[in-house]
Amino acid sequence: MKLDRRKFIGSGGLLAGGACLLPLFSACNSGKEGGESSYTGSGLKLSFEPFDLQLKHVFTIASFSRTTTPVMLVKIEWEGFVGCGEASMPPYLGESHETATKFLSSLKLDQFTDPFRLNEILAYVDGVAKGNCAAKASVDIALHDLIGKIVDKPWFQIWGYNQEDTPVTTFTIGIDKPEMVTEKVKEAAPYKMLKVKIGRGTDEEMINTIRKVTDIPLCVDVNQGWKDKHEALDKIHWLKEQGVVFVEQPMDKYDLDTMAWLTQHSPLPTIADEGVQRLVDVPKLKGAYSGINIKLMKCTGLREAHKMLNVARALDMKVMIGCMTETSCGVSAAAQLSPMVDWADLDGNLLISNDPYEGVIVQNGKVILPNRSGIGII
Amino acid sequence: MKLDRRKFIGSGGLLAGGACLLPLFSACNSGKEGGESSYTGSGLKLSFEPFDLQLKHVFTIASFSRTTTPVMLVKIEWEGFVGCGEASMPPYLGESHETATKFLSSLKLDQFTDPFRLNEILAYVDGVAKGNCAAKASVDIALHDLIGKIVDKPWFQIWGYNQEDTPVTTFTIGIDKPEMVTEKVKEAAPYKMLKVKIGRGTDEEMINTIRKVTDIPLCVDVNQGWKDKHEALDKIHWLKEQGVVFVEQPMDKYDLDTMAWLTQHSPLPTIADEGVQRLVDVPKLKGAYSGINIKLMKCTGLREAHKMLNVARALDMKVMIGCMTETSCGVSAAAQLSPMVDWADLDGNLLISNDPYEGVIVQNGKVILPNRSGIGII
Repeated sequence: MKLDRRKFIGSGGLLAGGACLLPLFSACNSGKEGGESSYTGSGLKLSFEPFDLQLKHVFTIASFSRTTTPVMLVKIEWEGFVGCGEASMPPYLGESHETATKFLSSLKLDQFTDPFRLNEILAYVDGVAKGNCAAKASVDIALHDLIGKIVDKPWFQIWGYNQEDTPVTTFTIGIDKPEMVTEKVKEAAPYKMLKVKIGRGTDEEMINTIRKVTDIPLCVDVNQGWKDKHEALDKIHWLKEQGVVFVEQPMDKYDLDTMAWLTQHSPLPTIADEGVQRLVDVPKLKGAYSGINIKLMKCTGLREAHKMLNVARALDMKVMIGCMTETSCGVSAAAQLSPMVDWADLDGNLLISNDPYEGVIVQNGKVILPNRSGIGII
Repeated sequence: MKLDRRKFIGSGGLLAGGACLLPLFSACNSGKEGGESSYTGSGLKLSFEPFDLQLKHVFTIASFSRTTTPVMLVKIEWEGFVGCGEASMPPYLGESHETATKFLSSLKLDQFTDPFRLNEILAYVDGVAKGNCAAKASVDIALHDLIGKIVDKPWFQIWGYNQEDTPVTTFTIGIDKPEMVTEKVKEAAPYKMLKVKIGRGTDEEMINTIRKVTDIPLCVDVNQGWKDKHEALDKIHWLKEQGVVFVEQPMDKYDLDTMAWLTQHSPLPTIADEGVQRLVDVPKLKGAYSGINIKLMKCTGLREAHKMLNVARALDMKVMIGCMTETSCGVSAAAQLSPMVDWADLDGNLLISNDPYEGVIVQNGKVILPNRSGIGII
């Protein structure tokens, strides 16, 4: 972890349940560390710190632009082991430093003395309040990191997946003027697939600009930007000719009938993003979309994400794993599932300039999972 | 393990891939044991031995009777760790000592040097030949036991479940004459729920006989024995009045339309048993049954069973975990999932007189998971 340790302690990461500050609030680079003598009980100790991610580029999608993303960095400590988690909270999703602070402060994790009772602990966390999905995910991720460190295995191994099966990740190109798009695509040369944000009336310009620079596979994320299904279908046919391999959230997330028509007629797979949040949504989307984009911050974390993956597979649906702008903490957690997905959009940490962690990396466009226990970050 | 060690070795448990006999083919009561010096490679070493389970009572269901069940006891060894598995092969399911020997002999598990690549290994095993589900399950169970021993945790913990959430198990009462049924029900006094086999024309006699002895909750397993849906519905209404809580496989497993009608009208949950085998079946059964009975020997083992559990839950279906007549090996493996089911029918090891293992036990009718790594057997 690259954050200054004293700064983190000094910021007074709040502790739920009235417990005292941890005496050694240190890195996520090891399993057990420090002595146990300083812990007065064997309950889980939660602490957290607000942090602002600095974006390398102004980020524009169909509905807004921004230059920072607020996150919450979370740690859970138990018997000398430390697990790290993160809540990434793009403003349009309704969570913030304030809501996450309120939610995390209300948790009484010290009532749990066995982190392996993950089902019970996360059911409790989920039941404390509605919403707060990113804050819930931060606890889920930290617990997974903690458990992985205790058994000294990365989660991709605990789940039985093969490190070599990781996909390439897309790199996201936001909506911008042609000269800026050209510049960004040139910077993205190391990547083997681009995710192009469209849906604000400049779709053809975006694609044509990119195709002047590169012929690698593209996918597009419309962010509900298209309004007419026939026009949408025409665009998809054109996009297929341009080497686009799938279309994310083409239309209104609430209009499943229109989406079912479009999916039935579309020559490219359609993927739900805004249209899917949690496990309960997945069976309802069968037929309306070809697949789903799973994001830890939407679905409350790895445990539910893994179930969504398995349920989508059982329903013969495609699976994509995505992220928000996040540190390497959130992205490395999501990447543990990536050996089992069709496509990955795990560039969230690559879009920021102040990542406090190291974790998953991208080599020749491919997601490379570190050989470290837990979620694999230091 | 209570089997005589020399007998096991002497029987010449076959080894796949032409490897030599293991020098110390010993118990499942520990993780790492013996030295590593005797292993020439780091590939997985598979060995197996045919065994016949002796049933305490002649077992009669709607279609046949028997007094023994052939099983295959399996071990997988890797870097000094030993995992145990089992294939239980009731004759009506088509597997036998011969088919399992052929299947297991054909596996080249020594090509795999990392047991944590469970997904890849089990995909290979599943792809070697069609069918052979119990033989496949024996490999799956042994690998889970092996992995659990390596990380030194039981699987219920690795999956994040709570040991205290285990259900009561049903105890099975086969179809028999009233005096024998009365005798068996009296013997079953320690159990808190009985599973009554019916469907051979003596349904009312069976239930009435049992109700003269006990008023504990019952479930019934019709084993496809009912032929008319209206008659079936009448019986279910009557059974509900007799304190029956669910009905397993009331009618022909192939007639989903009839089952959908019956499930829609039934005042009790209907559970698929013969009608469900593997993960791929589960989404197709939504609407036709209220739930499914998962058995490791049908679905190729714990990995697929766990997915079936999660998919059934996502589809808002009930889940029951069952077993064949099995040793404590197969039953203890299945029991690892039992904290998450609605009902358990895990009496397979209680019905036999020559169980070579110790594992899960039943106390006051409730399944008690041992605090041992892997699948929890010695």
